[in-house]
Amino acid sequence: MRSAAVVGTGLIGTSVALALSARGVRVHLQDADADAARIAEARGAGTTAAPSGPVDLAVLAVPPSQVADVLEQQQRRSLARSYTDVASVKRGPQDEVAGGRGDAATFVGGHPMAGAERSGPWAADATLFEGRPWALTPLPPTSRETVNHALELVSLCGAVPILMESGAHDHAVAVVSHTPHLVAALMAGQLAGVPEDAVRLAGQGVRDVTRVADGDPRLWTQILQANAAAVADVLEGVGRDLDEAVQALRSVDGAGGGGRRSAADRITRLLTRGREGRGRISGKHGGPPTVFTPVHVHIGDRPGELSQLLAEAAALDINVEDMKIEHAQEDSTGVAELAVAGAAASALARRLAERGWNVRQIPGPADRGDGSAEQLLRPAGLG
Amino acid sequence: MRSAAVVGTGLIGTSVALALSARGVRVHLQDADADAARIAEARGAGTTAAPSGPVDLAVLAVPPSQVADVLEQQQRRSLARSYTDVASVKRGPQDEVAGGRGDAATFVGGHPMAGAERSGPWAADATLFEGRPWALTPLPPTSRETVNHALELVSLCGAVPILMESGAHDHAVAVVSHTPHLVAALMAGQLAGVPEDAVRLAGQGVRDVTRVADGDPRLWTQILQANAAAVADVLEGVGRDLDEAVQALRSVDGAGGGGRRSAADRITRLLTRGREGRGRISGKHGGPPTVFTPVHVHIGDRPGELSQLLAEAAALDINVEDMKIEHAQEDSTGVAELAVAGAAASALARRLAERGWNVRQIPGPADRGDGSAEQLLRPAGLG
Repeated sequence: MRSAAVVGTGLIGTSVALALSARGVRVHLQDADADAARIAEARGAGTTAAPSGPVDLAVLAVPPSQVADVLEQQQRRSLARSYTDVASVKRGPQDEVAGGRGDAATFVGGHPMAGAERSGPWAADATLFEGRPWALTPLPPTSRETVNHALELVSLCGAVPILMESGAHDHAVAVVSHTPHLVAALMAGQLAGVPEDAVRLAGQGVRDVTRVADGDPRLWTQILQANAAAVADVLEGVGRDLDEAVQALRSVDGAGGGGRRSAADRITRLLTRGREGRGRISGKHGGPPTVFTPVHVHIGDRPGELSQLLAEAAALDINVEDMKIEHAQEDSTGVAELAVAGAAASALARRLAERGWNVRQIPGPADRGDGSAEQLLRPAGLG
Repeated sequence: MRSAAVVGTGLIGTSVALALSARGVRVHLQDADADAARIAEARGAGTTAAPSGPVDLAVLAVPPSQVADVLEQQQRRSLARSYTDVASVKRGPQDEVAGGRGDAATFVGGHPMAGAERSGPWAADATLFEGRPWALTPLPPTSRETVNHALELVSLCGAVPILMESGAHDHAVAVVSHTPHLVAALMAGQLAGVPEDAVRLAGQGVRDVTRVADGDPRLWTQILQANAAAVADVLEGVGRDLDEAVQALRSVDGAGGGGRRSAADRITRLLTRGREGRGRISGKHGGPPTVFTPVHVHIGDRPGELSQLLAEAAALDINVEDMKIEHAQEDSTGVAELAVAGAAASALARRLAERGWNVRQIPGPADRGDGSAEQLLRPAGLG
């Protein structure tokens, strides 16, 4: 890609333009608000001068309701060879395009999953899309060349492309973006009328839960309107679970013994299901969690023994990430498990063994804690 | 305070013990699970040895349902001169104490607003409470000496004390902590069954909204049970707004013109109310937002003018935080507003004026952007 046009220099459009410009693409900027385009230009996102001929790809960074209109208009002017948009819903605009508004062969819908609390060209950032998912929703008539132009755009922005059908996309964003936004706002709304003392008790939890509710209400009304049916479906699911939670809480409050217990079980089930759902998205960018290697040491019941164990690790500059104690028998002896970085486990185990500790299994230098055959080492000096 | 006891060496108890030990207080640790107490000791949180006589303050870091029992037991043993707890609900335990379980004169309820995703003594952190609110809920018979011991504890932990009535506390935490947790879990629960492609579109927003849902379902069931009535009240408020949102979304989806517009207005109202509520907690630790000083420069319509303006700031190593353009008249000239740190505004304005820019008002070195009398400076070299 040598040249591109960005139509609409808000946060997303200008961020795309900054990313493309940084990779050497010549970017032409336009916006219905000429000042927004000039600010984007001043930030180095491209030029406000019109291109002399069709660019390779035009990125339409306009609200969902305007995508088909702007596409038709810009295709009539031959602004580009291929077109994509960045709107957060895909079905409505694509139905309009498929219905004859604009040429579907040179258009592929797109949606980068990125945003920021601030809006406008000044808040734009060339790295906004790095590592983020970017959905592309080709129509049956969309040409391969157009899909490839959009894939190159996603790649130049450092994002991860995901090809999807537009309806599946809209259901997906209803559950992973639009409904969470609305739920955050509904929760935040309950804070509006509470006494000042109550607000002073607010900690990081409620700040995280409600953070996205800072977003622009008018912009989000447009987004929710454009995906109303799918959001309503997901929100009704939340509502059903919420009603069950209210019922369970009321019966905890009122009922005795058995009813209380089964109500508590219902709350635990709802929370457990929440943790399951959370587990599906908790790894950042899908990376695996950090793995530590356990070093197991037999311990007795002497005072200060665990502190001495930690002092041994400290003397080697080894960071102990976690410590647990497992009791094998009924006496007070047991096994202390020290979790350390894989590379340090071997050194720690050897030092402990040398210093007379009863270490169970010395991990190899590359051991990642997958627990193969165990070896019991009883060094001299310990029974 | 010279000596303290911590009963219950989980995350909160061990963090309190670490903070007190770091400030030179002799801390005695105990836990029904002796290993937990030994791990806390190994981390330097205090000693598992029993105190020889009553300590100044005992911190009961046990679940809400055990506070009155443990208080009665420890008071019978004369563990301390004063007692406090750290349970997340205050009314139930205090009603038990006021009803004769233990001596209310030497007991004051407490609740530090801090936590972490991990639990147990190993996850403890001496700085966990720094800058955090810590509610104290004295009963009418609570002695001033006991309140002062608790205030000293809060201060030694670096937290901010807030005296409250126990019922007001429980309503406050229902709205700023317990209900947000439950709402996050209910939202996260909707992710449990969605297709993998949908999960791949998850961005930072839904991760923030649902983060607290990672918490232990059994621990949180206990917390919610102990504050069931207050949480049910707040959750019903969320439910009413949720029902209205579902209705509005359905009529956006179905209705034409007028109905569509009023449904959109209802969604905007709900989102706006969410932003209002959010505004009450968005400042971290209650600090004021960062204030930047605007520098106003008259601009014409020359290409590249805004870029030159930014280059002037860059030459002085001044960070421009925001830029807007205001049009005063109907021609294409206007005023660019550059927001910079208060200390830099004066230097930037002077340089721009020297270099021939038409700067409106040169802010004084201490100007915090409060907009007093304006002065129009027309340097030589510009009309």
